[in-house]
Amino acid sequence: MTQFAIDAPTVIRTKRDGNRLTDEQIDWIVDAYTRGTVGDGQMAALLMAIYLNGMDGAEIARWTAAMIDSGVTLDFGDLRRDGRPLALVDKHSTGGVGDKITIPLLPVVAVCGAAVPQAAGRGLGHTGGTLDKLESIPGFSAEIGVAQIRRQLVDVGAAVFAAGDLAPADRKIYALRDVTATTESLPLIASSIMSKKLAEGARALVLDVKVGSGAFLKDPAESLDLARTMVDLGNAHGVPIRALLTDMQCPLGRAVGNAIEVEESLEVLAGGGPADVVELTVALAREMCALAGLDGVDPAGTLTDGTAMDRFRALVAAQGGDATASLPLGSHTETVTAPRGGTMGDIDAYAVGLAVWRLGAGRASPGERVQAGAGLRIHRKPGEPVAAGEPLFTLYTDTPERLAPALTELDGAFSVGQPPSRRALIVDRIGS
Amino acid sequence: MTQFAIDAPTVIRTKRDGNRLTDEQIDWIVDAYTRGTVGDGQMAALLMAIYLNGMDGAEIARWTAAMIDSGVTLDFGDLRRDGRPLALVDKHSTGGVGDKITIPLLPVVAVCGAAVPQAAGRGLGHTGGTLDKLESIPGFSAEIGVAQIRRQLVDVGAAVFAAGDLAPADRKIYALRDVTATTESLPLIASSIMSKKLAEGARALVLDVKVGSGAFLKDPAESLDLARTMVDLGNAHGVPIRALLTDMQCPLGRAVGNAIEVEESLEVLAGGGPADVVELTVALAREMCALAGLDGVDPAGTLTDGTAMDRFRALVAAQGGDATASLPLGSHTETVTAPRGGTMGDIDAYAVGLAVWRLGAGRASPGERVQAGAGLRIHRKPGEPVAAGEPLFTLYTDTPERLAPALTELDGAFSVGQPPSRRALIVDRIGS
Repeated sequence: MTQFAIDAPTVIRTKRDGNRLTDEQIDWIVDAYTRGTVGDGQMAALLMAIYLNGMDGAEIARWTAAMIDSGVTLDFGDLRRDGRPLALVDKHSTGGVGDKITIPLLPVVAVCGAAVPQAAGRGLGHTGGTLDKLESIPGFSAEIGVAQIRRQLVDVGAAVFAAGDLAPADRKIYALRDVTATTESLPLIASSIMSKKLAEGARALVLDVKVGSGAFLKDPAESLDLARTMVDLGNAHGVPIRALLTDMQCPLGRAVGNAIEVEESLEVLAGGGPADVVELTVALAREMCALAGLDGVDPAGTLTDGTAMDRFRALVAAQGGDATASLPLGSHTETVTAPRGGTMGDIDAYAVGLAVWRLGAGRASPGERVQAGAGLRIHRKPGEPVAAGEPLFTLYTDTPERLAPALTELDGAFSVGQPPSRRALIVDRIGS
Repeated sequence: MTQFAIDAPTVIRTKRDGNRLTDEQIDWIVDAYTRGTVGDGQMAALLMAIYLNGMDGAEIARWTAAMIDSGVTLDFGDLRRDGRPLALVDKHSTGGVGDKITIPLLPVVAVCGAAVPQAAGRGLGHTGGTLDKLESIPGFSAEIGVAQIRRQLVDVGAAVFAAGDLAPADRKIYALRDVTATTESLPLIASSIMSKKLAEGARALVLDVKVGSGAFLKDPAESLDLARTMVDLGNAHGVPIRALLTDMQCPLGRAVGNAIEVEESLEVLAGGGPADVVELTVALAREMCALAGLDGVDPAGTLTDGTAMDRFRALVAAQGGDATASLPLGSHTETVTAPRGGTMGDIDAYAVGLAVWRLGAGRASPGERVQAGAGLRIHRKPGEPVAAGEPLFTLYTDTPERLAPALTELDGAFSVGQPPSRRALIVDRIGS
């Protein structure tokens, strides 16, 4: 215990100089920032010091606990369906480009008998947010109360909601990281994800940890480290947890943006859609069902027999939306064609993520509105043949002055001629 | 030139990753922060990245120019006294503990014929600010306009004013650094000092760059680097400039705080006072007079013949104060005595600075009021004999709960028995 009140400059200085933060320092600054007695400037300086000097496992665990303690925690353990407890399980992705997996995944596992309380986020940096995507569906709202979440978990098997009162410290710190270039930090990513997930009442958790240029952490060793850190945090809280490391060198699917990703998700729910999106949806669904103790179910079948599509429509309807309504697409477009024929090579996910962000699908400051119709459509995936003059990709935006900066980001991102590097979509699997 | 608008996260990311900021990035972010379109969070993250990853000479020069350009610049080149141009010269200290030198120095050089437009600062971290000290004199105000500054330069030979519109970017960044533990950074210190001094209209400048525990930069090599960086910045702007590197291992004089330092300055102006304060005052006065072309004057004599004291009273009176009024001293005191007899050893300036800050002489957040009467009196200077039970130092504050934390800071700061290390007060001299 310190003999006198902790102050923010001392906490910042500790991490700035590469030393460990004490439990008391972490508890104090997370609480003070949440209540507003420590301002954005002091927290941002600390976040940059954490970014550059790191935190060890014990610091991350305490930081996570302090963020959970900053708000309410949910508990759905009392809910019953047909007299039996719900099979509560959730999934979280560390964020990728074209990563719309949550949208088809939720109805798939709901049909399999799971119940998913999903506290979802908004777009951060170059990656999209599930809420931003779903809110492009006319009428859909993620601002639902606990009573409605409980009802949906029983009746529909899923609810997607804004984190709201859950870990409000994380919500505030997340928004600040987004605008201060401190997103790509292992301790901050791990504690952010796990504080929200541990507070939201999931009884089991599957993580999709991205690896490659479109991931927040570019170094595969760091992604592995992140997966292990989060699995340890889950185990420490008694939550069964598993992590898949999955490839994010290329965007997932053929659509990147907001409404355009919902459109592609509907194709998957209709039994079609890009192979990689289907593969990852089914793989994650299997992990979730296994962790939730749902044996003998076939997630893949729910995509081809229409049951997952029906469940998605029910989920959207429960939250005020109409999944059959037409979706917005930016009215200003630009299509880039192949300069020569050959085999489509690699597509750089990070560049595509930045381009779509510049098109208006993401935000430069917190609270900014995103464009539902902004996005990018990939006409040729790596390995596919392409002839000279055929379209490679199309950009969509409501604001034409955004086309040029987006194109600049894409300079060199699409290659034709070089065969693409061969990578497995699912790279590794961590946890019992 | 970039093809699209610069945004704050990209600027922060550049420095975070250890790369050079472009001229356009520096101009843009300094301007945007000054106007408020970039907030404290983003600037604080950038400042921490600069703290940890540095800036090179060209970046520092551009950062300095951008801060000068953020506001008005003063020019007193047209002023005349007895038909001749004023000998405009200023002095700046990088900040020390017990460093009240500006207070006796200004009247000394004014009597010698100089004219000093001194844009002074408030306390930053563990070091005091000249304005905080002078404002402990009843009635004294540093909020004076340009017309009054011009009048005082001609009539009194000095004016002390809050930087106000000068380099408003620096003012704002300085306040933010103060609370985000980003003060002790060479590029930020150099650009802060030089932007204010280059904007204030001095035609020559003498720097007092501190070395030792009480200095912002603890490493002597860094202090030397800081002195050279600032001399280069001055030369680049055509301002004759010289720097003294001076010892700040021990506090200067026997008084540290606000009013208590004014009291000691009055002793010096009355021909007495601690030897180190007198020595440094006279050394800096000689450098200033030489740079200003004032030959054949004897600064030391002005302290013993009463002319500097008269000039100080005139300066204070011109700014609304009464230098003969009694000064406040904190009503709650604690005196620590020697546990054994012997020779007084080293006194750690940094610990003393922190203690006096905790007593209320400094601020923990910008705009906070400081206590005029908070401070510390040193009863035995290094090398003086002390008997067991004799007082070593006395603390003063208006708020008794501040005594305990201040004492904690002083743990081990005063040593008795070990002879003090011998150091010259003036360590080095840089510039033509």
